[in-house]
Amino acid sequence: MKKNKGRVTLPSENNFLEETKDLMDRWGADALRDSDGTKLDEDLKNLDAKIYTTYFVARGQNEFALQHITEAQQIFLMSDYHLAIKTELEIPFMTGYLREQLSPDYNHDPKVWWQVIDRTRNEVVDVSKWEVDSKRDVVVIKDTEPFHEYTVNFLSYMIWDPTQMYNYITNDWKDREKEIPFDVRQPHSQKFMMDTLKDFLETNPKTDVIRFTTFYYHFTLCFNDQRKEKFVDWFGYGSSVSPRALEAFEKAKGYRLTAEDFIQNGYYNSTFCMPTQAYKDYIDFQQQFVAQQAKAMVDLVHSYGKEAMMFLGDNWIGVEPYGAYFHTIGLDAVVGSVGGGMTLRLISDIPHVKYTEGRFLPYFFPDTFFDGNDDAILKEANDNWISARRALMRSPLNRIGYGGYPSLAYKFPKFVDYIAKTADEFRGIIDKIEDVKPMTKATVGIMSAWGSLRSWQNFMVAHALHYKQIYSYIGILESLSGMDVDVRFLSFDEIKLGIPEDIDVLINAGDAKTSFSGDRVWDDPAFVAVIRKWVYEGHGFIGVGEPTAFEKGGHLFQLHDVLGVDRELGFTLSTDKYFKEPVSQHFITEDLVGAFKFGESINNIYARSSDTEIIKVENENVVLASKSFGRGRGVYLTGLPYSFENTRVLYRSIFYAMNKENKMKNFFATNIHCEVNVYPNSVALLNNTHERQETIFYDGLGNAFEITLEPSEIKWGERNEETVEWHH
Amino acid sequence: MKKNKGRVTLPSENNFLEETKDLMDRWGADALRDSDGTKLDEDLKNLDAKIYTTYFVARGQNEFALQHITEAQQIFLMSDYHLAIKTELEIPFMTGYLREQLSPDYNHDPKVWWQVIDRTRNEVVDVSKWEVDSKRDVVVIKDTEPFHEYTVNFLSYMIWDPTQMYNYITNDWKDREKEIPFDVRQPHSQKFMMDTLKDFLETNPKTDVIRFTTFYYHFTLCFNDQRKEKFVDWFGYGSSVSPRALEAFEKAKGYRLTAEDFIQNGYYNSTFCMPTQAYKDYIDFQQQFVAQQAKAMVDLVHSYGKEAMMFLGDNWIGVEPYGAYFHTIGLDAVVGSVGGGMTLRLISDIPHVKYTEGRFLPYFFPDTFFDGNDDAILKEANDNWISARRALMRSPLNRIGYGGYPSLAYKFPKFVDYIAKTADEFRGIIDKIEDVKPMTKATVGIMSAWGSLRSWQNFMVAHALHYKQIYSYIGILESLSGMDVDVRFLSFDEIKLGIPEDIDVLINAGDAKTSFSGDRVWDDPAFVAVIRKWVYEGHGFIGVGEPTAFEKGGHLFQLHDVLGVDRELGFTLSTDKYFKEPVSQHFITEDLVGAFKFGESINNIYARSSDTEIIKVENENVVLASKSFGRGRGVYLTGLPYSFENTRVLYRSIFYAMNKENKMKNFFATNIHCEVNVYPNSVALLNNTHERQETIFYDGLGNAFEITLEPSEIKWGERNEETVEWHH
Repeated sequence: MKKNKGRVTLPSENNFLEETKDLMDRWGADALRDSDGTKLDEDLKNLDAKIYTTYFVARGQNEFALQHITEAQQIFLMSDYHLAIKTELEIPFMTGYLREQLSPDYNHDPKVWWQVIDRTRNEVVDVSKWEVDSKRDVVVIKDTEPFHEYTVNFLSYMIWDPTQMYNYITNDWKDREKEIPFDVRQPHSQKFMMDTLKDFLETNPKTDVIRFTTFYYHFTLCFNDQRKEKFVDWFGYGSSVSPRALEAFEKAKGYRLTAEDFIQNGYYNSTFCMPTQAYKDYIDFQQQFVAQQAKAMVDLVHSYGKEAMMFLGDNWIGVEPYGAYFHTIGLDAVVGSVGGGMTLRLISDIPHVKYTEGRFLPYFFPDTFFDGNDDAILKEANDNWISARRALMRSPLNRIGYGGYPSLAYKFPKFVDYIAKTADEFRGIIDKIEDVKPMTKATVGIMSAWGSLRSWQNFMVAHALHYKQIYSYIGILESLSGMDVDVRFLSFDEIKLGIPEDIDVLINAGDAKTSFSGDRVWDDPAFVAVIRKWVYEGHGFIGVGEPTAFEKGGHLFQLHDVLGVDRELGFTLSTDKYFKEPVSQHFITEDLVGAFKFGESINNIYARSSDTEIIKVENENVVLASKSFGRGRGVYLTGLPYSFENTRVLYRSIFYAMNKENKMKNFFATNIHCEVNVYPNSVALLNNTHERQETIFYDGLGNAFEITLEPSEIKWGERNEETVEWHH
Repeated sequence: MKKNKGRVTLPSENNFLEETKDLMDRWGADALRDSDGTKLDEDLKNLDAKIYTTYFVARGQNEFALQHITEAQQIFLMSDYHLAIKTELEIPFMTGYLREQLSPDYNHDPKVWWQVIDRTRNEVVDVSKWEVDSKRDVVVIKDTEPFHEYTVNFLSYMIWDPTQMYNYITNDWKDREKEIPFDVRQPHSQKFMMDTLKDFLETNPKTDVIRFTTFYYHFTLCFNDQRKEKFVDWFGYGSSVSPRALEAFEKAKGYRLTAEDFIQNGYYNSTFCMPTQAYKDYIDFQQQFVAQQAKAMVDLVHSYGKEAMMFLGDNWIGVEPYGAYFHTIGLDAVVGSVGGGMTLRLISDIPHVKYTEGRFLPYFFPDTFFDGNDDAILKEANDNWISARRALMRSPLNRIGYGGYPSLAYKFPKFVDYIAKTADEFRGIIDKIEDVKPMTKATVGIMSAWGSLRSWQNFMVAHALHYKQIYSYIGILESLSGMDVDVRFLSFDEIKLGIPEDIDVLINAGDAKTSFSGDRVWDDPAFVAVIRKWVYEGHGFIGVGEPTAFEKGGHLFQLHDVLGVDRELGFTLSTDKYFKEPVSQHFITEDLVGAFKFGESINNIYARSSDTEIIKVENENVVLASKSFGRGRGVYLTGLPYSFENTRVLYRSIFYAMNKENKMKNFFATNIHCEVNVYPNSVALLNNTHERQETIFYDGLGNAFEITLEPSEIKWGERNEETVEWHH
């Protein structure tokens, strides 16, 4: 691979040959791909480039799908809440759902698969008390209790692929077919999928890489009757169900699941809920099945001498790259969208593949690439690159790429130039660090009910989308993504068995009752004692939001004694709270100018003892505190939205929690806009901003040097043990 | 009673005869009292005034108390939390307590009365596993589980009366005896108390009114080892326990209470906790006993032709005026401290007494009455009077009074003049309204686990003290105290049996899990259905804070369908929230200029349906909303700190919830600083400020008149059915 070429994937399209050549040359691209809505003609496929072809496994075959409509994918849905005024109630359960997407399943006996639930009792109503009127899509319930709320859990066919539906509606398409997703668990579909893939491989010799988009089951996404999003859960297994699947589950696991196991009060097993055993079993069951199926396809691809790449998203349910069976599939690569450091790590940390590829922003779509938007385009590209680059320095992607219509991007020469520069910078970085492990100063374990399965995905609802309820926690992961620490995602279950040797600091973050905070795990004395002991013996514990929250024994925060704070629920208002004065200065906030911006506030956090170091207080709430606990320490933060300031606050919190403040300033830049990465033979000093920065740099011996960095510069140096010789 | 005299009680002191006469004359006082630290000499007692004498039942008799030290009052206390590092742990349980106040009870077998609790399990440790070392005041626990927390519940004697302790420490007394409280349930004490009272009655012929301060058991108040308040609960029954009481309880109720029934995780049965059945039983048991004892004393007082008055506070446990047995005591009067409208109503609404008296502020103590503080003194007096006056117009006290050292107040002639004016105004008001019932436009029921027992005391921790966690709710009561509505305090239990006929609007206010919000009562389908039906059929429901909160069936707020809002806990983040736009105007906020000041924020309140009228939103949280529900309506408010603006918001909410907006402007003042009170033959228009106010006044027919009011003026008019003729 010659210098300044390679590692870059370019989208192309018909009738764009010369421009494609030009772009390939300027960006050093060595692969071409199609996109949703674009195809590559033969001339393009003959260029000196790897050819990626997007491949849909479970949709885009309506002739087949219509012939086997009972093999359409399915989902359990809950009706709206309906109030019984008298002793009979009709529930038009489809109200609010989009009939273009969903169609009730009357083929399988509703009395077996559906449920009516009295939500005021939260009890299932006996099947003898209700009937389905399939003509009107109504359930009629008898003997209802007046002024109780009722819902219907019903089984529905999915007759429109959610991603195609999204693109279709968003782009206001009119004349295309609405693609019906079919289910790999059904006999005709399974055979059809394999046959179709074989045909494709036979008839597309120029395709080098099959880009599966993705496999079998879509994350949960429903629209409402106004064609607007109604429900989205990037992790949801809801759209993978069927009577056949549940019967197989019963055989495999020895018990039967009901609609409510999926509906779960309308929470639909959100990742924010503590997972039930039934849901965990179902995930295991489906992952195993889906991995088997995917393996067969990947084997087939390999038998044609081609590579199998998976897109991270869309129909990715069951093939989550951090899942237990992913390694059995044998994929060559995963490609995914990069929104910043956290989503980059989500891709670049994926194990068991030969390479990973990040699709950077902006996507070449008309909503961004329109006349006069030059500055915004450049800014989006620059912001995306510079925020992701931090993470790249820790865990490199092997490739980058773009998506959409290159003909649009080509009209913006400054953008084309910028990407040319970025591609060179990317190649330069990767060439240096692809095969080496960066030095880390600590290993941080992030706790949740999900553990490694949801690595870099804690607190997410939908991929990279902002929610008021999550940004205060997401910032932890975004900060960590570019920090010179190792990050591991640990489940409560594995922690209970013993905290791994290499962990220096545990982070427990999230709202009370969620799977991230832990809820009932904190009711388990053995679990609590394991962590207390571990901290006491010289480790760090960082709690964010409502960590260790389970009201018991006089505390909400079960590790109040480690964190130094608790939350007042009203029950101990009679007990005087003496400790209110913040310390005048503290190691954790030494680089913080002004207030600590903790995001969403959590009311009534107070210090429990004089040993608590109250660091920041706002509106009488402690928002930042620390405490010694044996030879270890606890740190409490109300929240940590992503910012340079907060990244430093977290960084310092980690060293403080470890009781190793004195180790921080080895290979360290004082300026919060700069970061240092140390490799076996080199050192990189990053400027993470678009402005010039001056910083003090400390080498490994603690010697200080003043260094100036140009906007977004990476300064590379040669490392000789603890010292650095900077390149010029 | 001649004009401009009467209804006023003056504190006096030795050597203050002439000044007392002068003050009596200028204030029209007809009664004289002593205070803590002041006595009345014979000359004073010979004046033409009723003589009140403060009488302490259970303290101030150290000779007796020391002779019968095992009859000292007792309390169950919890030690600090102690962490077991190994398998043995010592807990010095007295750490943090004031040894001048508390002394461990080693007379009763600790193995019977004390408990050691593993707070990590929250389980009682077997008595075989611990021993008490009474020499060192330590409990030694064997076989502890490492890294579990342990506490000791121990029984202690109270060897210093809490109120005397407070005064003693606050005033830095040196040479007085520390008064030991003794227990009416003990045989010698009971007899001694009666004998002593008899002696007193015999030897104090000039006393007309025995002012009991108060009876037997003090509300819970402990100091720490730095002589600062450690724990204060104005409602706490903690200081009324003893082995004798618990043995009697077991006989009466058929089961045994333990220390933990009182300690309750260190919550000590805070009124914020949902009361346990054991605690409710104990309250009933003690109230019955205390009422019997108090009745005997009151009967004795009456037999000497004197009156029995009770101070509301201090040793008032068991004699709560809204309790079930209070009427049996036969008291003539209750006197209490007035901090504003809510605390005035707490006194003036007391049933079963001949008269009530409010002690107004400022108290004549050196912390207020010092040279140069004239303006602050006047302001405190004026604010106190004007805020209490609103409530007086609805439910009159029969008398007012002052406390402290009159010699101090006498040095401030402007203050003396102001009180002279206030006393005249008070008499003028009472003469007009004492015997008539004001017209009310609605009856509001305030729900809580406590019902009428805690009338006007919901959300209180210590009498009239401010807490960050309560002011957003206390404002509801303060607002209501002067409103032309009837207010009733209803328990969840009685509501479940059927909402009283006369209730128009129910208010459910408080933080989740508290006895004010209701916690598990909202898990009861029958309870939920009763309220839904009642609202549906045409009543109003106002929720404040986290009303109806119990996570179940997909909702936190069980009456989400009545209120129109719910709180997002994270579990339904995947469900799109469509309804975010506030209405452009709304009846409830018509008089609100600028933002709605709701006090402490509650995060993640959102509108559940398009039927919700979103009235105010802040930081993406719905802070004010309403919704129709059948023929009734729900209103949601995040909080309601007391202000003129918020009083109007609540007033309008009541009319809106009742579906009777059109009734509001009968006998109504548009200016939020003014209020109208209508009596059978008169109408009073109040200016509740120290500034001149102009308002539109609507008579009962809806005719509008412009009226100007002088600072703090009450304009009286003669009522002729629906019209008013104003006095000039």
